[in-house]
Amino acid sequence: MDVKKIIAKIVEEKAEVGGIKQVYYVACGGSYGAFYPVKTFLETEAKTIKVGLYNSSEFIHNIPAGFGENAVLIVASHKGNTPETVKAAEAGKKAGVIVLALTFKPDSPIVEFADYVISYSFGDNKDIAKEKTIQALLTGVEILQQTEGYDNYDKLLKGITQIDLIVKNACKHVEKRAAAFANEYKNDKVIYTMASGAGYGAAYMESICIFMEMQWINSASIHSGEFFHGPFEITDVEIPFVLQLSEGRTRALDERALAFLNTYGKRVEVLDAKDLGLSTIDASVVDYFNHSLYNNVYNIYNHALADVRQHPLTTRRYMWKVAY
Amino acid sequence: MDVKKIIAKIVEEKAEVGGIKQVYYVACGGSYGAFYPVKTFLETEAKTIKVGLYNSSEFIHNIPAGFGENAVLIVASHKGNTPETVKAAEAGKKAGVIVLALTFKPDSPIVEFADYVISYSFGDNKDIAKEKTIQALLTGVEILQQTEGYDNYDKLLKGITQIDLIVKNACKHVEKRAAAFANEYKNDKVIYTMASGAGYGAAYMESICIFMEMQWINSASIHSGEFFHGPFEITDVEIPFVLQLSEGRTRALDERALAFLNTYGKRVEVLDAKDLGLSTIDASVVDYFNHSLYNNVYNIYNHALADVRQHPLTTRRYMWKVAY
Repeated sequence: MDVKKIIAKIVEEKAEVGGIKQVYYVACGGSYGAFYPVKTFLETEAKTIKVGLYNSSEFIHNIPAGFGENAVLIVASHKGNTPETVKAAEAGKKAGVIVLALTFKPDSPIVEFADYVISYSFGDNKDIAKEKTIQALLTGVEILQQTEGYDNYDKLLKGITQIDLIVKNACKHVEKRAAAFANEYKNDKVIYTMASGAGYGAAYMESICIFMEMQWINSASIHSGEFFHGPFEITDVEIPFVLQLSEGRTRALDERALAFLNTYGKRVEVLDAKDLGLSTIDASVVDYFNHSLYNNVYNIYNHALADVRQHPLTTRRYMWKVAY
Repeated sequence: MDVKKIIAKIVEEKAEVGGIKQVYYVACGGSYGAFYPVKTFLETEAKTIKVGLYNSSEFIHNIPAGFGENAVLIVASHKGNTPETVKAAEAGKKAGVIVLALTFKPDSPIVEFADYVISYSFGDNKDIAKEKTIQALLTGVEILQQTEGYDNYDKLLKGITQIDLIVKNACKHVEKRAAAFANEYKNDKVIYTMASGAGYGAAYMESICIFMEMQWINSASIHSGEFFHGPFEITDVEIPFVLQLSEGRTRALDERALAFLNTYGKRVEVLDAKDLGLSTIDASVVDYFNHSLYNNVYNIYNHALADVRQHPLTTRRYMWKVAY
């Protein structure tokens, strides 16, 4: 069943008890990051639907008061076996909350506690429109369209038909740049990422899942608007920043940060969504596609960096190796 | 007018149009961090009220659809002149949204666009119960109590009567430890903070406003639950972490992170809210007081660190010095 039909069934079922009033997105790490665009979408575009994005462990230890008959719980786990996220789904099942699970493995443990399962594309040559991030975005878009209504619904769906080609072209476009980046930054001990708006989750993922987890490089993801209220004092000609110059409503924040870095910093890698072709998507919905662009373009950079550093992206010291 | 009366007037006024449905907390940097407990409070305890916490610049560039007659905008600016936050207040005024401004300077520019002004205590010997964080928390508590109702209202108000003494004792209690910390970490290039739950904002503030802004030390605030899904691979015996072992529902997350750091790391400074006396506050509401405890205890550490490093907390290279 596709997302539109799943949401239609939930909306129909919930009509008897007053409709959908809360949507909780719950996941860990990369899956948490993948929920960032849809969380921002419902925060921005929904008038009254309450939306939350939670780390799974935080959620199961501190279940919100709104988690009841009007709530929908949407969880994501790539292999469907993240213990905290499986527990969150179980908590949903026990509380009588409708549970939707996004996973790459539809035969995994999390499915036991899910009313609906959405599987997504992953790996080389995947269709970007079928990726976790876009499938997650669609859950929010359909919930909004089928309840409060969403004026830009058709434009957003059109954007989904455009994103695969845009991303694949962008990935080719950055190949040389990514190789140069890898050479320039291969010995750095700290690399910051910076972003704003619905694309911020991609900067968060790059920071925690790639620089910290897969390359053991110190990192933080800085919000471009918050940059000027603390973090910018760290700026000097040595400190590297990867800046997401996003397309959409918060681009001005990223431009301001870039202007500062161009004046007082020196080592800035700019990923410009305009330059990378995102602007063909309608301006009213383009914000929600930054994440898919950046998350996939980063992949080219990550492989280049791992190669030059001779530190494979699969190397771990704790994950899969020790109990924790 | 105190917070309870201000909210009563707003609730009365909004009754004609269907009541308060959205609460937007909007600020930058330290003030953004100070809103973290109240944002978590309404996310957790309110069933249907939609709550958002936004950086001011993000907010004014991307105003949410819910920002209308049922919304309350609550802004904070210490000196009342943060340009982005003043603009956010102005946007509220223009949209006919009720604006509440928290500021230390009630005669500042932001007041022009505020329907109600709440001033707070600040500086040496301040009453912790009258600080920005607790006054902000009270706005959420009163909104909830006067709309949906809040079962633990009396317990939370009792907690507010307890917090000043707890914090002042804790600050004395850590003096020696803070001096030892300053000596141990004075030459480090990176220091991470880690936290969960409603107290996470204090870890964020320590990271961006102290380590990065005031000491030019690289930093990130890591969520204790997210730690195991990426960041923990950075752990080794060299990397320093300051861990908030919080009191309340998410303590288990912090304990798990601490157990890992005690096994695979070495340089961990633990701020244990139990040890620091927070447990005398009722368990049903104690989560919302972690921030006030940590934020003030950090102050002892910060002065010790600045002294040993001969890098005053007031030294800046960009703020107050260049245009940006």
